[in-house]
Amino acid sequence: MATQVEHAISPTRAEDYPEWYQQVVRAADLAENAPVRGCMVIKPWGYAIWENIQRLLDARFRALGVRNAYFPLFIPLSFLVKEAKHVEGFAKECAVVTHHRLESDGQGGLRPAAPLEEPLVVRPTSETIIGAMFAKWVQSYRDLPLLINQWANVVRWEMRPRLFLRTAEFLWQEGHTVHATAEEAMAFARQMLDVYAEFAESCLAIPVVKGEKTESERFPGAEATFTIEAMMQDRKALQAGTSHFLGQNFAKASDIKFLGPAGREEYAWTTSWGVSTRLIGAIVMTHGDDDGLVVPPRVAPAHVAILPVIHKEEHKDAVLGYCERLKRELEAQQYAGQNVRVELDLREMRGGEKVWEWIKKGVPIRLEIGPRDVTQDAVFMGRRDRPPRQRESIPRAEFVNRVGDILAEIQANLLAKARNFRDQYIVRIDNKADFYEFFTPKNPENPEIHGGFALCHWAEDPEVEARLKDDLQVSVRCIPLDLDEEPGVCPFTGKPSRRRVIFAKAY
Amino acid sequence: MATQVEHAISPTRAEDYPEWYQQVVRAADLAENAPVRGCMVIKPWGYAIWENIQRLLDARFRALGVRNAYFPLFIPLSFLVKEAKHVEGFAKECAVVTHHRLESDGQGGLRPAAPLEEPLVVRPTSETIIGAMFAKWVQSYRDLPLLINQWANVVRWEMRPRLFLRTAEFLWQEGHTVHATAEEAMAFARQMLDVYAEFAESCLAIPVVKGEKTESERFPGAEATFTIEAMMQDRKALQAGTSHFLGQNFAKASDIKFLGPAGREEYAWTTSWGVSTRLIGAIVMTHGDDDGLVVPPRVAPAHVAILPVIHKEEHKDAVLGYCERLKRELEAQQYAGQNVRVELDLREMRGGEKVWEWIKKGVPIRLEIGPRDVTQDAVFMGRRDRPPRQRESIPRAEFVNRVGDILAEIQANLLAKARNFRDQYIVRIDNKADFYEFFTPKNPENPEIHGGFALCHWAEDPEVEARLKDDLQVSVRCIPLDLDEEPGVCPFTGKPSRRRVIFAKAY
Repeated sequence: MATQVEHAISPTRAEDYPEWYQQVVRAADLAENAPVRGCMVIKPWGYAIWENIQRLLDARFRALGVRNAYFPLFIPLSFLVKEAKHVEGFAKECAVVTHHRLESDGQGGLRPAAPLEEPLVVRPTSETIIGAMFAKWVQSYRDLPLLINQWANVVRWEMRPRLFLRTAEFLWQEGHTVHATAEEAMAFARQMLDVYAEFAESCLAIPVVKGEKTESERFPGAEATFTIEAMMQDRKALQAGTSHFLGQNFAKASDIKFLGPAGREEYAWTTSWGVSTRLIGAIVMTHGDDDGLVVPPRVAPAHVAILPVIHKEEHKDAVLGYCERLKRELEAQQYAGQNVRVELDLREMRGGEKVWEWIKKGVPIRLEIGPRDVTQDAVFMGRRDRPPRQRESIPRAEFVNRVGDILAEIQANLLAKARNFRDQYIVRIDNKADFYEFFTPKNPENPEIHGGFALCHWAEDPEVEARLKDDLQVSVRCIPLDLDEEPGVCPFTGKPSRRRVIFAKAY
Repeated sequence: MATQVEHAISPTRAEDYPEWYQQVVRAADLAENAPVRGCMVIKPWGYAIWENIQRLLDARFRALGVRNAYFPLFIPLSFLVKEAKHVEGFAKECAVVTHHRLESDGQGGLRPAAPLEEPLVVRPTSETIIGAMFAKWVQSYRDLPLLINQWANVVRWEMRPRLFLRTAEFLWQEGHTVHATAEEAMAFARQMLDVYAEFAESCLAIPVVKGEKTESERFPGAEATFTIEAMMQDRKALQAGTSHFLGQNFAKASDIKFLGPAGREEYAWTTSWGVSTRLIGAIVMTHGDDDGLVVPPRVAPAHVAILPVIHKEEHKDAVLGYCERLKRELEAQQYAGQNVRVELDLREMRGGEKVWEWIKKGVPIRLEIGPRDVTQDAVFMGRRDRPPRQRESIPRAEFVNRVGDILAEIQANLLAKARNFRDQYIVRIDNKADFYEFFTPKNPENPEIHGGFALCHWAEDPEVEARLKDDLQVSVRCIPLDLDEEPGVCPFTGKPSRRRVIFAKAY
């Protein structure tokens, strides 16, 4: 008789990938849908991951001389329309404030009372409002470069919301910089892409491909959009961060000019770049398994969960005392330049249930501590990078000494596993039939999991992009930056091509 | 001939206090008005103060078991109306989203396109939307207490905006907790007031009076509102933080119920509490002087500004090398559990201008470093708690060793100075004529500076409050918690009174 392996999450990834995602978000207590259309509530475990992301990115921004500031939530409609492509790109997604004040509707309810002279758009991104300020702040080349970031909420009215991946409101950072030359602005946009890629790999354990977007996928108003693309476990691409070279488009729209060293007035060159709470969705879909979330230690709200296992009242004091000492000892240890973060779970609930809750939340290390562990001066450790039932007893002192190393090992294992997975599904494809085959579901019961990243020649032909989107919902995710040029032929048109690009389905 | 003392800020406090405030905010580069009605842009120096406030408060919340989360920006109108007094209190200040999407208006412009089924209010505070979530999260007494905080932006349409003090959008934290009993909720609301008071005094160096608001000044929907009140240099009161005991009002409005240990379903008891970017205004008006801002070291974006003074090119390398070593040495020192924060200002501008810029920004310690300091292995130090021209030369090694102590000394000096000032203008008043005299400007050229906190008997009579507001723009700021009851007589009505309260003009 075959052993039936049970899993904490139902359905499994293989059974129904999109539903698995929702169930992991719920089981890990990351977020839930708000009673406001398309909006989410980020719960403490999810928000603490975001706070770690903020802390780690913020240090990287600061090291480049970027400083944080805060700009208004509302953008006057007249500002948004200044850059034609920009407003065209965002018009359909705008939430619009038209009134202030509420008054009685005469039926016991309330209605909006005082119409605004000019409608205000709730920021979908802040190039135009920040540009208006930059125009005041930048006078001379001595004021440049101007390097500003803001952590904020933004609103984009989404028709098909999905927790973390597409929500009407989300949290993000948006960097905005002003430079004296095109070269410097372009170099900065590229440098920030490198920061994002390094952060994704070293902190989130998510391997990414750095690349440039094609014209059809560019940020509205940008001259060039750079992206980091990650592969989720359904082999779809997730755009995990973008950095835009905006040329002089927004400088002209917002009138950002400076006096050069020679006394000539010139338009400046700007960039913008951002990552969002979407990264939490990327963590779920890169590392999660059929038992729930797996959080990379670098961004885990807790590194270690201590779970006292007390069956008899007589053991209670000894076990709890041992656990509390253990917590203090662990918190004095360091991992990645921070004190180890420990949760001691004292809730009264069944032991197994409690252990599984922490597995589903993806805490890197679980310590189940009962009377025997106290007697042996040991810990009974489970690691989230190993199967739930594979646990081991380790002398307490040894574990305390090694906890930082174990966390580093888990972090490295997650990255290696994600990289192996991804590399397995990056495939060079040179003819149309293979391409269509690659993106066609084989298993009708599980149509979501198929394909991957197709490295394929493309002759910079938007018609091919449009056709493949229609036929297969596949698009050019990026023109990889770290891939050498290689002359070839587009398999769809026969036209000569200079390089391969990455085609994939995408979130 | 008398020496004319010049000041960096014009007008001075004595000349025109409200305008002095605006000029300090500008000169310190804290914030400016945005081109959106009533909204502000918080600039890097101001935002970094806010980040320090966040860090210091967050640690205090966490120590009490409070966890951060994030709730939607938008509140459906139907949620807001659930608590009658609450919506009445905020109806006039609401910004309302009525449409999503923009479409062409046929004249080259855009207009709001798709009306929402239900208007959405941009949160002025989040009791109702958070309550709707808490109703789902709380089932049993085992789920309590539930202790949640969010850092967020809120919008209250202000008719007379003023940077930091009253703006249409501001940043704040709002804590929301749920408890099983009235006693526990009340104790938590009071405990949080103590946290705010301790934070204001130890971190912002702002002495505060803890008290309870009268019914007319309560948060809309609260059973009791507690407040910390600070005195600004024009002797007006500024409400610096509030903590509300909400009774069961919001639990009933949002249906937050739990099963008690005996299996009976009960409504829960809730609290909410918050401080905002208004605290930055309080810092300006508590510590600022006629030379600009004075930032308490605990929340200063930089503790030390190193200002190289180079008149001859031949000294440049030696001076800059010395400054960079000094920066590294100082950054390795600790103050209040953090590394000392140092700015090395390498901008090319006139020396005097640069020094004054840092005085106006209120950096606690300035070091002017020229070739002579290098030769003497010394630093030429100015402290912001001393007059700008009073500076001293200190051996480098000694300064580096003592920098933490000097910062602690400055922090203590600022608190002592603010406390002295405040105590000087807290006056016991026992008759009506003295009261009116106290709040009547003596100097017609400077009508803003007069009065203070009047400790005066009051028989809990709302009519007296209304009359004094009309006559003098004076209100009961709070019923002090740390003042013993003392039988007496209301000087306005002759009615018997149980205690003195604080009357003042207020921001």
